[in-house]
Amino acid sequence: MKRALVLFAHGARAASWAAPFERLRDGLREQLPGTPVTLAFLELMEPRLPEAVTAQVADGVDDITVVPVFLGQGGHLLRDLPALAEQIRAAHPGLRLQLAGAIGEDPGVQAAMRDYCVRSLGNV
Amino acid sequence: MKRALVLFAHGARAASWAAPFERLRDGLREQLPGTPVTLAFLELMEPRLPEAVTAQVADGVDDITVVPVFLGQGGHLLRDLPALAEQIRAAHPGLRLQLAGAIGEDPGVQAAMRDYCVRSLGNV
Repeated sequence: MKRALVLFAHGARAASWAAPFERLRDGLREQLPGTPVTLAFLELMEPRLPEAVTAQVADGVDDITVVPVFLGQGGHLLRDLPALAEQIRAAHPGLRLQLAGAIGEDPGVQAAMRDYCVRSLGNV
Repeated sequence: MKRALVLFAHGARAASWAAPFERLRDGLREQLPGTPVTLAFLELMEPRLPEAVTAQVADGVDDITVVPVFLGQGGHLLRDLPALAEQIRAAHPGLRLQLAGAIGEDPGVQAAMRDYCVRSLGNV
């Protein structure tokens, strides 16, 4: 079984928007040598999720965890992501595809966001 | 000088989307007793930023730090937020209004997001 990670982000028109997602990917590649880590987008940026998965499957991956790099769980995670996952599972019957929860809901991420807010208060 | 914090988020159609932002606000209110902490949205949810600031100024606040609870810095933070800040400063000449950087760019938030991704790998 060969595992991989896909960081699923929204996408935006401004190229600058992608910087923290690319930094997250690059940090994970250092932290997880041997595990493929790639970015995929819902819209406006490439690659989209089905293409990102197809590329990993072509590299021999058969167990993919998708982490939604979204703060909140709105329509994109409640409807768009499950629909994409269904389409991907139909296209790759041998693939195990797991969907994590929104990164912004994680208690550790919440604590780090609180710290940033406290440090920012009056000190921008 | 009375300081306050405004957490500035995008907004979405699904009410469930706001949950992690409300949790962040509630945690900060516990951590910063005596400092007003409120949420404001760019679109789709209320209150919008100008109304949130007006409410704090009416409560005697004269130094507001706005923390963009956005992962990436795209058009909303590069154009929409500065335009809103200009409009707010014109409406409240005695107010000190400071804008922090996108929360997703903070190294502490990045580290917490990496940890969440590593823990999620194969364990959703």
